[in-house]
Amino acid sequence: MLEYHKGDFSDQDAMEQALAGVELCFHLISTTIPSTSNLNPSLDISSNLIGTLKLLEVAVRVGIRRIVFASSGGTVYGPPQQTPIPESHPTNPTCSYGIVKLAIEKYLAMYRFMYGLDSVALRFANPYGDRQRIKAAQGAAAVFLSKALRGELIEIWGDGSVVRDYLHVSDAVNSLLAAAMYVGNTSVFNIGSGQGLSLNELVSAISFELGRPIEVVYRPRRSFDVPCNILDIQMAASELSWRPLVAFSEGLARMRRTLTVL
Amino acid sequence: MLEYHKGDFSDQDAMEQALAGVELCFHLISTTIPSTSNLNPSLDISSNLIGTLKLLEVAVRVGIRRIVFASSGGTVYGPPQQTPIPESHPTNPTCSYGIVKLAIEKYLAMYRFMYGLDSVALRFANPYGDRQRIKAAQGAAAVFLSKALRGELIEIWGDGSVVRDYLHVSDAVNSLLAAAMYVGNTSVFNIGSGQGLSLNELVSAISFELGRPIEVVYRPRRSFDVPCNILDIQMAASELSWRPLVAFSEGLARMRRTLTVL
Repeated sequence: MLEYHKGDFSDQDAMEQALAGVELCFHLISTTIPSTSNLNPSLDISSNLIGTLKLLEVAVRVGIRRIVFASSGGTVYGPPQQTPIPESHPTNPTCSYGIVKLAIEKYLAMYRFMYGLDSVALRFANPYGDRQRIKAAQGAAAVFLSKALRGELIEIWGDGSVVRDYLHVSDAVNSLLAAAMYVGNTSVFNIGSGQGLSLNELVSAISFELGRPIEVVYRPRRSFDVPCNILDIQMAASELSWRPLVAFSEGLARMRRTLTVL
Repeated sequence: MLEYHKGDFSDQDAMEQALAGVELCFHLISTTIPSTSNLNPSLDISSNLIGTLKLLEVAVRVGIRRIVFASSGGTVYGPPQQTPIPESHPTNPTCSYGIVKLAIEKYLAMYRFMYGLDSVALRFANPYGDRQRIKAAQGAAAVFLSKALRGELIEIWGDGSVVRDYLHVSDAVNSLLAAAMYVGNTSVFNIGSGQGLSLNELVSAISFELGRPIEVVYRPRRSFDVPCNILDIQMAASELSWRPLVAFSEGLARMRRTLTVL
């Protein structure tokens, strides 16, 4: 049975109605993205952190068994001291988005400790894939591919050397399901492709997929972009028996098929 | 020149007037203590975390050079994997108070990175000393000593084996001054006595100071009390040239002199 409830995350009564009788909750809500979160950190905190606290209160009341939370492998670590980045790496976020994701992880751990509310946090790399929004301020793979398809100029912040870890949406979904079924004591997992791709390599891959050259313009780099982010996914492999299955070239081809019909 | 401004921490205009022309700000405000913070984490977040964000916005606007922040060595680490606890120890707070202190440290780092606002966070152990409030829900040294002086029964949560690191207030003040003057790149320091004392040893020390036995009753332990907390203070010694100077027996004797005149 699928029920659809539309409501405000901060409306605790609506949340309680929606979650009555629910055993498992995937918490995927965020009102901000990394690049916007620093414009108003107070709003980021009140909507996402306090919003999640209200969810946790409801979860304890209605007897939810487990929360699977979408955290952020791209922002909680900050500038990496090593790559790939293990879960034990120091956490020094350079944007409010990452600080709030990290604080939510800590409250999840506190609720586990205090009230026995079980939870798993997945620190996602950069998800991309079929039917991704293309008019967005994030999601380089989808934005670049759609611009290339429309013959528009691609803008890159910086010199294109910034490396990201692109995770296909179907692999992300599989990790959420694995976290829901997980039996064990680990509560935080990196979820990524395990491989890095620079923005310039991303453009090359799109060019290869389309079979033609692509025009790029380089803009000044953004201060909150860490130079490189590749996640160590050994823990998810050993504990969740999860591995990414979709190679980037394959994921790109699949995304292209959904974009060309737009 | 000393000016005294009384106002609400969440009143950004009042804060801006009070801080105009100020170069150095000691941020010692908290509306909660560890034991109360879990009763209403949302309030803890909105008053202390969002309050501090407002302070940081003002600090950037009025051109404050450095913020010295009173963080919490007793709560940011959670159950210790080793003692003494170095600053690099994992941070798994078991109370909202510790999560908020940690999140504030992360925002201080972000503001340093984004706006060049300098800051030092001092993770204090358990401060105690002259003129400490005795009618309070925290501060075992002062509460126990005053109860013993009045001949009242001392209540201990748990079996008295809980170990804490008691820091004399004059040593805490000296560390704040050292942090204000500090030239270097380290931004987070443990500040403690470097020594642990169990609650039972605390009672013995008070008994010795007063020269008579003390009556104690043991209550069930509290879930958010970590079993042991002793801070590694090597970093503060080498970077801030700071060391604790007041031995516990001496601090206790000094505190007794201020309490007996109450």
